[in-house]
Amino acid sequence: MTSVKRVHNFNAGPSAMPLSVLEKAQAELLSFNGCGMSVMEMSHRSKEFEGIIKTAEADLRELMGIPANYKVMFLQGGASLHFAMEAMNFRPAGASADYIVTGAWSKAAIKEAAKLGTTNVVFNGEAEKFNRLPAAGELNFDPKAAYVHICHNETIHGVEFKSEPVLPAGVPLFCDMSSDFVSQPIDVTKYAMIYAGAQKNAGPAGVVIAIVRDDMLERVPANLPTMLDYKVMAEKESLYNTPPCWSIYMCGLVFQWLKELGGLEAMYKIDQQKAKMIYDVIDKSGGYYRGHAVPESRSIMNIPFRLASEELEDLFVKESKKADLIGLKGHRSVGGLRASLYNAVPLESVKALADFMVEFQKKNG
Amino acid sequence: MTSVKRVHNFNAGPSAMPLSVLEKAQAELLSFNGCGMSVMEMSHRSKEFEGIIKTAEADLRELMGIPANYKVMFLQGGASLHFAMEAMNFRPAGASADYIVTGAWSKAAIKEAAKLGTTNVVFNGEAEKFNRLPAAGELNFDPKAAYVHICHNETIHGVEFKSEPVLPAGVPLFCDMSSDFVSQPIDVTKYAMIYAGAQKNAGPAGVVIAIVRDDMLERVPANLPTMLDYKVMAEKESLYNTPPCWSIYMCGLVFQWLKELGGLEAMYKIDQQKAKMIYDVIDKSGGYYRGHAVPESRSIMNIPFRLASEELEDLFVKESKKADLIGLKGHRSVGGLRASLYNAVPLESVKALADFMVEFQKKNG
Repeated sequence: MTSVKRVHNFNAGPSAMPLSVLEKAQAELLSFNGCGMSVMEMSHRSKEFEGIIKTAEADLRELMGIPANYKVMFLQGGASLHFAMEAMNFRPAGASADYIVTGAWSKAAIKEAAKLGTTNVVFNGEAEKFNRLPAAGELNFDPKAAYVHICHNETIHGVEFKSEPVLPAGVPLFCDMSSDFVSQPIDVTKYAMIYAGAQKNAGPAGVVIAIVRDDMLERVPANLPTMLDYKVMAEKESLYNTPPCWSIYMCGLVFQWLKELGGLEAMYKIDQQKAKMIYDVIDKSGGYYRGHAVPESRSIMNIPFRLASEELEDLFVKESKKADLIGLKGHRSVGGLRASLYNAVPLESVKALADFMVEFQKKNG
Repeated sequence: MTSVKRVHNFNAGPSAMPLSVLEKAQAELLSFNGCGMSVMEMSHRSKEFEGIIKTAEADLRELMGIPANYKVMFLQGGASLHFAMEAMNFRPAGASADYIVTGAWSKAAIKEAAKLGTTNVVFNGEAEKFNRLPAAGELNFDPKAAYVHICHNETIHGVEFKSEPVLPAGVPLFCDMSSDFVSQPIDVTKYAMIYAGAQKNAGPAGVVIAIVRDDMLERVPANLPTMLDYKVMAEKESLYNTPPCWSIYMCGLVFQWLKELGGLEAMYKIDQQKAKMIYDVIDKSGGYYRGHAVPESRSIMNIPFRLASEELEDLFVKESKKADLIGLKGHRSVGGLRASLYNAVPLESVKALADFMVEFQKKNG
């Protein structure tokens, strides 16, 4: 099967998936587990699909160490919908919510919350082009905040939290973990809510995984639109209506792959090794490659960097494509270049990129 | 490839997909069109995906004859989310919306709209167990209604509109067409909005297709949560954030299949023929099989029917499964039996069901 041509995929999301996962999905596409139907053709209330979603949840709970007092849900709308939903569900009327704004995605989150009520900016890195995380001393939390929102890893700006900010007692921490979800061990008990669009590390686009501590669900106001009500979604175990079955199935295959690989500790080691390969090239380039984030805030998932001119950056994109290195153009909002090194990007792809970067500098230095 | 075992799939949704569509998806799962990536691994802003979504839209416009003054969007959340969104977006503050309640899904739609503002029940078939559509004389429309909502085909109760209700001048018609979408030619100009969860006739779960006339978008109030704002979704051509790429791709393959088959006129003929095969068995059974809907309101997609006892119905489900006839148990809310004969259910499967029903009656009559 692997005689099919495959490129080195550095897309920021949707992004690379493990080849063995794709091959399994391909093999059973016409008939899942011998049942005579594709996963796309099964009732979401069938025994087969119940097995798929329950196993996916159990595997994720095991991988992340999610305690029993957290619900795990497979929902829709991307993190962007959940930016609005977290405020609708968990910020009581009249209360304010704190936001640590470290890049484009936490900025998008506060924008949605501000439409619906009061927000407070605890930190805003925009004046520094979102190139760093805040120091502890910079954070002036509202001790009465309904919650504090962070984006664990900023996909566009490439800054990633290394540990959780220390909050005032009793204030719950909410986290958009879309772009570094299941890339590393996380102490889930430090969060009251974690959510992640799957299309970076967990699976294909079309599903959001939400992990919510039970006590938060008591905050949900009456009469929300049903599909925006986390309490209903939790009670119905993600099956209030038809969920995105195929995307959930693919996430389940990715979680199995992660378990076989040794879990999140093992994955984290590999991801760190991959990131180091690229940061080393940047740091040893004598300023030829300029990383966007300050070293202490660097993401192991997304590495945005610049060259001396846009012409040179365009050439880099063009030449890298020729070498089957795909997805290295920076986000349209910031330009430059970006390498996304998600879980499923193989070591050999990262090696190929590192080699390409060294060669490119030699040729165009 | 087709040596894989396949069953006769009568699921109500997610449901059967055309075998040739599944085979194509399988063949290019590791590398779409030779690009070296799965559709699940591509950027939603890549040329490849742009080709997929634009072609899917163009093919749907051609199949349905959608005029240029309608936007076509590929969204998320199932019809259930759009029950709330249509009211949020298109019912101005203080205005009321009319609902024709013909089954479980229009009942669910009005429930969501009632949470957010004023609704008016134009017809309610519940006292008659939703076994028929209203006659024209029964409909007392509010001439000032923001819109009239109908469900074109009630998946659970098996009643289906044969023509659009005649509304007061200037009142727009909104339609949840989830379960008979692209099963028949429709005069789109009679509607201001059509939406459909894909997972019956158009593709896998995880995508909702929304067709909205341009003038409706002028009604959208400011400051809606972005993901719930049809105007933004239309302006961004379904790419405000990452869409459910795989589900859209699969819909595109289904639309190509429909075109090759001869379009919606050709599909409709086949669907009518399939439905007639089962209704004929019911009508000739001397009351052994009892269809839920009155003959004039019968759906060509979903045929709910009963036997004399629940024991006999259980036996029917059990025996039919043994014969690889899958998905014939009625919806848990109403019991009984149901055959869903969506576009992708082959004639030979319907024939197998018809034969089984005749045999079952002979054995257990």
